Amino acid sequence: MIIYDVENFPNPLRVRIALAEKNALDSVTFKPVDLMNGEHRSAAFLHKNPFAGVPVLELDDGTYISESPAITEYIDHHFAGPSLTGETAKERAVISMMQRRAETQVLDAIATYFHHATDGLGPELETYQNSDWGQKQHARALAGLVYFDSVLAEQSYVAGESFTMADITLWCGLVFGGFCSVGIPANLTHLQAWHDRVAKRPSIAA
Amino acid sequence: MIIYDVENFPNPLRVRIALAEKNALDSVTFKPVDLMNGEHRSAAFLHKNPFAGVPVLELDDGTYISESPAITEYIDHHFAGPSLTGETAKERAVISMMQRRAETQVLDAIATYFHHATDGLGPELETYQNSDWGQKQHARALAGLVYFDSVLAEQSYVAGESFTMADITLWCGLVFGGFCSVGIPANLTHLQAWHDRVAKRPSIAA
Repeated sequence: MIIYDVENFPNPLRVRIALAEKNALDSVTFKPVDLMNGEHRSAAFLHKNPFAGVPVLELDDGTYISESPAITEYIDHHFAGPSLTGETAKERAVISMMQRRAETQVLDAIATYFHHATDGLGPELETYQNSDWGQKQHARALAGLVYFDSVLAEQSYVAGESFTMADITLWCGLVFGGFCSVGIPANLTHLQAWHDRVAKRPSIAA
Repeated sequence: MIIYDVENFPNPLRVRIALAEKNALDSVTFKPVDLMNGEHRSAAFLHKNPFAGVPVLELDDGTYISESPAITEYIDHHFAGPSLTGETAKERAVISMMQRRAETQVLDAIATYFHHATDGLGPELETYQNSDWGQKQHARALAGLVYFDSVLAEQSYVAGESFTMADITLWCGLVFGGFCSVGIPANLTHLQAWHDRVAKRPSIAA
């Protein structure tokens, strides 16, 4: 099993934390993609993922899986260990819903802000920017943090009382936020307490 | 089980087709949401889904599930019948990846075009529009159709040789496209052939 990625980028981080939760990091070979020099737009990489995103998982039979939730779905089902995506119909639906909210309201919103309303990855890579849209997503992200604070006032983790993929996705959103000055506002004490607790997990602290 | 939705809207349609594929439409009570008059922004509806979107599934225990892929995940696991989201780790990952691509490259792209670069649902409901972003997503949707034509040149359905949620999502994207003048270009014959085949399924033709 091979993962093509850029270490420390937000979506690759989702996959690496999921692997660490499954104690499976050593079961995968990581191959770095030189994204800053445009390798993700090469014909060889577009054969792996026509939409040019990292990470990409290559299965042993040569199948390429992209889109982070699809990769983490595979990891969760393939490797033993506590479920990150749920087992019953209801668990799966709640985790899927909350992961989607963590994406659209925080991780993707912050990514769009970064790529559209800041210098992003620089003019060579940011070939189209829409600053107004980026600022709109900045506001969405801040509202998203308020929402997750309200969720975490009522329960220990994003999708209930267990740590799941929804927590990993929100965590990676906050890591991305930290990188582009979208921090946790001081009044969001439930979100901050969750953050400090999650930061101590071996999959993240290591 | 209750579904709050707007009949014929694209995301509700994903859920209704999934239910029809499971022969389970009669197991659900549909309650219409008067979205055109802003009911989705009422306190009562925001209690069901704080992000104001339809559809919302209410389980018998009172749990609310929003986000269409989460609802269809629930439907697929809860009701008997052929799997729409896959069974093995690889099947689940491939279907998840292809459904995500059908969303981002077609359904969501067309939705963003509609809400931002056309009159959309009218000035009362379209409180923020970014025409340039909408046009960008129009271009993305057209490129997405080319991509899916290339996929369907090689296989019968979006995620392989079986009809899955990925087909339902692409279908709903094309229905939305038909509503706002984003049709299938005449040269995309594989996509058109898939469309004509899918149109005959009882879950869709009915």
